[in-house]
Formats: sequence, structure tokens, C-alpha cells
Amino acid sequence: MRISQRLQNAPLSGIRKMFDLAGSGAINLSIGEPDVRPPAEALTGMNNAAEKGMNGYGPTPGIPALREAVAERYGIETHNTMITPSGTTALMIVTQSLIDPGDEALVPDPGFVVYGPHTMLSGGLSVSYKLTDDDFQPDIDDIQRKITKRTKAIFLNYPSNPTGGVLSEASFKAVRDIAKDNDIVIISDEVYEPFVYDGVHRSFVSVDDSVVINGFSKMMAVPGWRLGFITAGKEIITDLTKMQYHMCACPNVPAQHGVLSAMPSVNGYLNGVKEIYRKRRDLITKRINDINGMHMNAPRGAFYAFPKFSFPLTSEEFAMRLVKEGLICVPGTAFGENGEKHLRFSYAADEHKISTGMDILEKVANNIKG
Amino acid sequence: MRISQRLQNAPLSGIRKMFDLAGSGAINLSIGEPDVRPPAEALTGMNNAAEKGMNGYGPTPGIPALREAVAERYGIETHNTMITPSGTTALMIVTQSLIDPGDEALVPDPGFVVYGPHTMLSGGLSVSYKLTDDDFQPDIDDIQRKITKRTKAIFLNYPSNPTGGVLSEASFKAVRDIAKDNDIVIISDEVYEPFVYDGVHRSFVSVDDSVVINGFSKMMAVPGWRLGFITAGKEIITDLTKMQYHMCACPNVPAQHGVLSAMPSVNGYLNGVKEIYRKRRDLITKRINDINGMHMNAPRGAFYAFPKFSFPLTSEEFAMRLVKEGLICVPGTAFGENGEKHLRFSYAADEHKISTGMDILEKVANNIKG
Repeated sequence: MRISQRLQNAPLSGIRKMFDLAGSGAINLSIGEPDVRPPAEALTGMNNAAEKGMNGYGPTPGIPALREAVAERYGIETHNTMITPSGTTALMIVTQSLIDPGDEALVPDPGFVVYGPHTMLSGGLSVSYKLTDDDFQPDIDDIQRKITKRTKAIFLNYPSNPTGGVLSEASFKAVRDIAKDNDIVIISDEVYEPFVYDGVHRSFVSVDDSVVINGFSKMMAVPGWRLGFITAGKEIITDLTKMQYHMCACPNVPAQHGVLSAMPSVNGYLNGVKEIYRKRRDLITKRINDINGMHMNAPRGAFYAFPKFSFPLTSEEFAMRLVKEGLICVPGTAFGENGEKHLRFSYAADEHKISTGMDILEKVANNIKG
Repeated sequence: MRISQRLQNAPLSGIRKMFDLAGSGAINLSIGEPDVRPPAEALTGMNNAAEKGMNGYGPTPGIPALREAVAERYGIETHNTMITPSGTTALMIVTQSLIDPGDEALVPDPGFVVYGPHTMLSGGLSVSYKLTDDDFQPDIDDIQRKITKRTKAIFLNYPSNPTGGVLSEASFKAVRDIAKDNDIVIISDEVYEPFVYDGVHRSFVSVDDSVVINGFSKMMAVPGWRLGFITAGKEIITDLTKMQYHMCACPNVPAQHGVLSAMPSVNGYLNGVKEIYRKRRDLITKRINDINGMHMNAPRGAFYAFPKFSFPLTSEEFAMRLVKEGLICVPGTAFGENGEKHLRFSYAADEHKISTGMDILEKVANNIKG
């Protein structure tokens, strides 16, 4: 059975590769999955909805009460929101709805692994743009150079996976203005919005010609529930709803009731979670900077450390050495060629795991130098 | 914001149109949604999984235990299965993975509303084939005539929505042979598999170069959980898994545990449900055939009645007359131009509702004649 050209062209994420190579006792700092418990209200809300018989089809753009709760959180109207089955599906819906064959989309390198493939699955051309050193802002000059008449969209992802970067006000304004001047859609993946430790999150919600992707996976520690959302202009939400109808008919209904139940108290929940992550961030930053030949600034957001190393081996070779010693991380090149000489560690893991992982990293780094 | 050509071209289903026109007290026989309770084990299984903390990411092709349970049900191997977030998403994954721009796909007319649009969203050309009168088998001569060098796939949907038809052995063999001779993939949507009242379900599971779509929405009365599955050859499942990774990362995890818990007892549950539907089928068939100018054979499967009428008005006009009198159904043309002079009634509704709905139908039909 011959598969379609688009599928043949689409690269598969390298994140899970390392996982398969590891022994069963390995410390896994490769997966960006919250290890905290979801809000109790979310679990109760989902269970109650299912027990009460809310197991039938829901409206394609999501149940109205949850759309309203999302709208309230971001100070927008309900018609500016659509609930989706995960941030991944949201991105797929957006790319399929906006990108035509031959269109170009600017994607961050290093950047999360789906923007390029999603662009390609729509027949578009993915064009990488650089980030600045250490604080991982979009390199505005590089973006300017890479804009053509076919540039349809620019992907942003702040707080950032894999870098932990948070968008500065200057970067925010620069990207917003470039997009406006060149009639480019901003596709802003803001799923790590709640996790900013220094500074503030600058959102593209309510910025004209922006489509913002967000989700409950990280916010409420329920990635297995597959629930995300999109905020955008009213007209484009109507268009995206049509695509969602074809993609999935509607998002999971009991899970929507679950996150709805947790919305009123989510900020309190997140304050607690953020403190947990902040401590882990401080721990992993210190441990990595204590290693000769490795360096990072404390990540300002998300829950990833993306240190640079100066050892004479590739990030893939380094990650392979680590996995053989029982520590799973992701080589920087899994996020684009500019990720070379970096590793990504998720600190969505308890402090004991992080410490043990860093012991292994230290040992392997010393061996490489030695 | 300019939307993509594929989205501009994709028609939206007409099923929900009537719904918007109806008053709040209307009898709704337009929605193909089970009104029976899901198996108790499914609800308990989902709730337990969520409470036990199974809220993280799952494997892209589904949790192994559920894939095994599906494999066991159909006498295939686990590597021949993939769990998907709904039958709709399964169809989208299959079309995006198989159909290239310019490819042609044969779709039944009348037929379920997504095969054509899904083909078009992949850049393919949707070519309708006819069904035979009264028993709604694929018209083999018409299919033969419409095959070209670009024909990539043929969609089948038995038991059928909207017709209630069940595939005969002769039709099964004829389609299988045509597909083989012409190197055409069979995409067989078998989500109504459990609901056959006369005869047997003939499945394309294990037929070479077939991809079978199925789901738990109808089987376990949980359409709001958005869980389906695909069975196919090992290699194509690997390819489809790659597309699923991009489409959604993985299906909902607690819901997978829910349906897994109900799998051992699902046949007993379905026997009960089938008897309920059979009685309703007999009721609606009798009521419709009692009306002068309307006719149908008792549908052999699914839970739809698709009667023909001989009155001098279109199916859309007829449906509009009914909705004004408080009965919502779907005009046959929502399922293709060959659906003209038909209406679709779902009998996934209790007998009282069906009776009241048929009273309205009878009255309106008599008025048209009178």
C-alpha cells in the first residue's frame, strides 16, 4: 500500500528515540510531562459528568461553559475560543486551515518538534529562524532576512520548549510589527503560559492576525486527557471549527467537564505547582553550572533546562553516553540543527530524580574531559 | 486572514442544519447517537484510571492492553491495531496517509457525510458510486465504470449510515475482487458492526490492502469519549501511527482504560442493546410503511431508517415541512444527490419518541397528499 507523499516527507520526532535505548531503571529526564497531581476538582468533575450521562457528542467548538471560562481567563469573548482535543491537534487544525502548498512558515530552531512537520503535512515549506544566545529570543534580523512573498505564518513558542526562554517585551513588539508589516499570521504556542519564574508572560491573545494555541495538559497536569484550546479572531474561529468538525467532530466531553470544574481554582493550584517547579529549576541550574564545560542561564519559564556544552562530541553522542549510564535526556539536535552542543533535560521530575540524574551527568562529563 | 484552499473547498455536513431550525420541544430523530447507557464497567474503568493517576501521555498507537483486546476480538495481532481519538479522526488519519493530490476515491452516494470532504482535504477527488435500490448494495457496474488509473481507494460503510444496509456476500466478494484487480485500497467504515438484525456482518478485517475503521462510540454508547480504532496490515499501521503522532500525539488515556474494562463483557451488553434497537426498528418500519406514498425494507443494520417517498417535493422541502411540525430528521440529499426522495430517521431514540415522531410524519404526509 503506497502511502501519501506528505506522510513520506514528514519527519518523526527524535524525542522518544533515547527512551527505547535505556534500561528499565534509568532516570528519565526526557519527557515533558508534569509529574504533579491534577487538581482534585478536575478528576471529580470528569467522573461526575460521566456518571451523570454526559457521554454523548458535544458541540464541535467545545462545550459553551468551558469556552466561556477560557474567554473569561483571557479577557476575550466566547466566540474567540475553541476547545480542541490537545494542543497538538490544535496545531494540526491551524496549519491545515491556513497553510497552502507552497506557503512558507517560519519556525524557531531550536524549537518544539511539530511546527516543521505540521507545515510540511500541509504542503508548506518550513523555514528555520535562529534564536539569540543564552536568552533564546527570536533573532529579528534572521527573521527579516527569511521573509519572502510566500511567508504565511511565523511560529512562536514562549515560554519555550526546549529552551525555557520567555519572550521579552522588545521581542514581542518586534515580532508583532514584522508580522503586521508583512501580512504574516502569528501562530503562538503558549501551552507553558502558567510556568514563568522570572519576568512575565507576553501573550498574543488579542493581537490582530494571531492564533494562540494553549492547552490543559501542562496547566492541569492532564496530558493524557488530550484537551487544548485556541484563541483567535471570531471569523477564523468559525473557519477552524469547520476544520475541527472534519478532524474529530468534537473534543472529549467528560474531560471538558473535568477541566471546567477546575477552572475557578486553577490559579491557586498553579501557584503551588510553580513553586515546586521553581525549586527544581534552581536545583538543576546549579548542578549543571557546577560542571566544568557546561553552562546555562536559569530558564525563565516552562520546565526544561537547555544547557550548552563545550565538549568535543555531538549532542547525540553525548546523549548516547548518558543513556548508557542510566540518564535519559534529549539531544539538542532533536529540536533543529541549531540545537547542536545542547542537551534538553525536563525538570518535571522530583528533586531526588533530578539529583541522581545530575550525578550521572557530572560523572559522564568528567569522564569525557578526563 | 486568508484560509487554505483545502478548507475553502471542504463542504460542511448538512445534518445539523435542520436542528437549528427546530423549536425546543421538537422530536429529534436526526442524530445518530445511542441513547442507551454505556456499560457500567466503562464508567468505572475510566473513573478508576483517572483516580489512580493514569492521566499522563500514553503510547501513540494506544495502550497495549486495549490494542490486545481489540486484536483478540477480531482474531488479529496487536500490531494490526491502532486506537484513535474517534472514528472521524481515524478516517482523517487514513485519508491524509494514503491520498495524494490528484488521487481519486470512490465514495458511496448516498453515504455518510465525511468520506468526500476527507478525500478533498487530502487534495484528492471524490467520485460517487451508486447503491442498488431497496437493499443499498454497492452498484458494482457503476464502480467498474468509475475506476481510473488514479483511483486510490474505495470507501465502504456497512452496516450503513444512512441506509441501514448490510453487505451481502456477493457484494463483499465483488468489491474485494475489484479492489485487488485494480490495486485499490478498501477503506471500510464498520462502526455499526455490532448492530446487525438480519444476516451477518461481513468485515474487511484481515482482507489484504484493506483498512478498517471502527470505534467505541456506537459499540459502547460513548460518542463523547472520542475513541475509535483502526485495523490493517502491520506496515500500514506503522505508517498510520506516524500520522497519528502528528495529529494528536496519543488518544485519551482514562477513556481507553474505561473501554478496556468493558471489553470482556461487551458482547453481553450488546445483545441487550441490539434487542432494544430491533424493537424500535420494527416499530419505525411498520409506521413508515403504513403511510401511503412512503416505503422502505426493514433496515438490516445500524440504527437508521431511510425510507423513499413519492410525494412531489424534494427531500429538503419535506424535511422542512416536518421540522415546522416538530419532527427533526435529515433530508436524504445531505448524504449525496442520490439520497433525493429519501429521509433519514435515527431510531436511537425511545419508542415513545419514535411513535410521536411518526404521528407527525403521518400527518404531514397526509397533508401533502391531501
